[in-house]
Amino acid sequence: MRQTKLFTKTRKEAPADEVSKNAQLLIRAGYISKEMAGVYTFLPLGLRVLKNIEQIIREEMNAIDGQEMILTALQDKEVWEKTGRFSDDVMDVWFKTELNAGGVVGLAPTHEEPITRVMTNHISSYKDLPVYAYQFQTKFRNEVRAKSGIMRGREFLMKDLYSFDADQAGLDAYYEKASDAYKKIFDRTGVGHVTYKTFASGGAFSKYSHEFQTVCEAGEDLIYVHEAKGVAVNKEVLTDEALQDLGITREELVEKKSIEVGNIFKLGTKFSEPLGLMYTDEEGNSKSVVMGCYGIGPSRLMGTIVELLSDEKGIVWPEAVAPFRVHLVILGNSPEVRVAGDLFYEKMKTLGVETLYDDRELRPGEKFADSDLIGIPTRVVISEKTLQAGKLEVKKRTATEAQMMDEEEFLRTL
Amino acid sequence: MRQTKLFTKTRKEAPADEVSKNAQLLIRAGYISKEMAGVYTFLPLGLRVLKNIEQIIREEMNAIDGQEMILTALQDKEVWEKTGRFSDDVMDVWFKTELNAGGVVGLAPTHEEPITRVMTNHISSYKDLPVYAYQFQTKFRNEVRAKSGIMRGREFLMKDLYSFDADQAGLDAYYEKASDAYKKIFDRTGVGHVTYKTFASGGAFSKYSHEFQTVCEAGEDLIYVHEAKGVAVNKEVLTDEALQDLGITREELVEKKSIEVGNIFKLGTKFSEPLGLMYTDEEGNSKSVVMGCYGIGPSRLMGTIVELLSDEKGIVWPEAVAPFRVHLVILGNSPEVRVAGDLFYEKMKTLGVETLYDDRELRPGEKFADSDLIGIPTRVVISEKTLQAGKLEVKKRTATEAQMMDEEEFLRTL
Repeated sequence: MRQTKLFTKTRKEAPADEVSKNAQLLIRAGYISKEMAGVYTFLPLGLRVLKNIEQIIREEMNAIDGQEMILTALQDKEVWEKTGRFSDDVMDVWFKTELNAGGVVGLAPTHEEPITRVMTNHISSYKDLPVYAYQFQTKFRNEVRAKSGIMRGREFLMKDLYSFDADQAGLDAYYEKASDAYKKIFDRTGVGHVTYKTFASGGAFSKYSHEFQTVCEAGEDLIYVHEAKGVAVNKEVLTDEALQDLGITREELVEKKSIEVGNIFKLGTKFSEPLGLMYTDEEGNSKSVVMGCYGIGPSRLMGTIVELLSDEKGIVWPEAVAPFRVHLVILGNSPEVRVAGDLFYEKMKTLGVETLYDDRELRPGEKFADSDLIGIPTRVVISEKTLQAGKLEVKKRTATEAQMMDEEEFLRTL
Repeated sequence: MRQTKLFTKTRKEAPADEVSKNAQLLIRAGYISKEMAGVYTFLPLGLRVLKNIEQIIREEMNAIDGQEMILTALQDKEVWEKTGRFSDDVMDVWFKTELNAGGVVGLAPTHEEPITRVMTNHISSYKDLPVYAYQFQTKFRNEVRAKSGIMRGREFLMKDLYSFDADQAGLDAYYEKASDAYKKIFDRTGVGHVTYKTFASGGAFSKYSHEFQTVCEAGEDLIYVHEAKGVAVNKEVLTDEALQDLGITREELVEKKSIEVGNIFKLGTKFSEPLGLMYTDEEGNSKSVVMGCYGIGPSRLMGTIVELLSDEKGIVWPEAVAPFRVHLVILGNSPEVRVAGDLFYEKMKTLGVETLYDDRELRPGEKFADSDLIGIPTRVVISEKTLQAGKLEVKKRTATEAQMMDEEEFLRTL
């Protein structure tokens, strides 16, 4: 895309009331726009990153037999009353609103109840199981505080997968598959090296659940990392009993601040029982379906990547999630440079290399500052100087020095 | 996809309270699920159709320089108070809710106000214009009645594009481009032949706006069609003055029921003025940006296609929006048939032909009834009979008779 066509502008300062680094940088670089605390518009660059993250998650969910669907934001209170969760005393993050036709409805903070009800229309026999279904859907949570940018929104995107199995063994096996898929997602999105599968509170059907926690100073959570085993324990379950369960000692653990980027939870029959999601087994017995749930917030993950990888100059996107792969920057306005820039841009398009082309008439310093702020992984400069040398000036966003290389050499690096 | 893996089941009867044909068929075939009146979950088949429609619209919006972004559902009342539209007396379809942190917010029924405010951060000079931005976003409208299935939802998907031009001439030119793009969208999605560009009420900045109305008995609108000119007039503007403006007579018009599948509207400075979206022109004068808006509801369009093209046996999808291109059905459970079915399915996958493979152990009658209900454009049957003949039995959903053809011949039809 030509930068002269991109409608967003960078800005030197973030809004004064924006305290989180992720929102500051993303607003300054033109990725997002603040509507109100915890509520952000995704501008074209931001939507590109979000969709890249979404697509990585989608591929991994499809690989473990997830079927994509999309539930609704507006929630019928009847189904939530059956599990006792419509009450604000039980779930304090509800947004509720009135129908003009009469009655109260909620805005979904999560979707266990409605998906369980949907499945009562489609699951009745052991032959219908297992079922794995997921969605990317906006969640609404009426948080009292929302100061963490896109890491804790009042309105945010969530991928939530729900598993429906005939028995605990089926759930247990799928839970491990989902855990492996999550590991792949965090590896692919560039945060895997500091993301730990973390023991957290379970429920009636399992002693522990698991969170995926990314170690980061901006985190709101405290975890205790066992480096050698590559696992962690959430502070909330750090008891002698848990240490014994896990076969580790307190001394082996290091306290770290972290961001919860995903979680997986064995629900058992907590929702299927009150909502009547039953199936008939091979012997003709009626049984409750055994469920699990598996969440990742793509927008929170995007914020986490910014918190974790940015530097003093701006954002540093991993290749897999970057809005563009190459940032082509021309310097000076001579016809030769512009023609060379246009030709190179067309070549990148032909090769299918997503390229942002800075064809603006600005000073080099401004262009470089914007390029660093926006954080595309590879910057290619074309100027009078590079043309004279018959080379391109190529700089990785993560490198300190640029390299001169000829076009063929550059193409081989892609 | 193997149908044994697809979690949705077809059903013989739609819910008793569902009066619209589109919702009845889509629920029976397992495309959607009703959460409450006017609020529908999109199941895997339904999401596939919706995404196909979305992609066609996206391609046409990108072709007229639209930049995709995504605004928010939660709305800051401050920006809507500036245009006077936060009042329920002015907009009676608001859903409103309370923040736990204090204050009222709305759920977006449309997005003129927030996008205009976003643009104040990015548009300041004539050099920044024009800008064309669009989104696919859920809209919330607190309709008193919602009996038209996915054609009039309380929560529904909308593509809305907003244009920002320096002057009326820029707006007028873009308006025509958008109109042409809309025509392409309705042609590509299979409803173009009965969809009319229809003169409707304008506003302070133009005498008329335009709706795209699809002639259909299930429609809630009344239009007057001029067949020869291929245009129509909405009942609301059918005056002597309008007839004179359009150079047509009342006698040339035929009254038809219709569904509004899109609309385009010249907003002028209605929103830019109160919200302070100004730019500096080449002479240094400060001027208000001139806007237009352009809407299509992908879910309504999906419902319209069902209303318009279905027959007594079920849904009939046009090729471009169908959830799969081919419905492969095996009959009987002999190993030969199953092996041939599996092989053909793998071949379709290799060729990139999206195929739903009915590998279920059911009677032929049930399989054919489901296939007709689901409405995939081409059905391919493999049975003992077809294997003996060394052929495939191929039937278009729109045809009355099946044809026997060999595989090579079939592949050439794709």
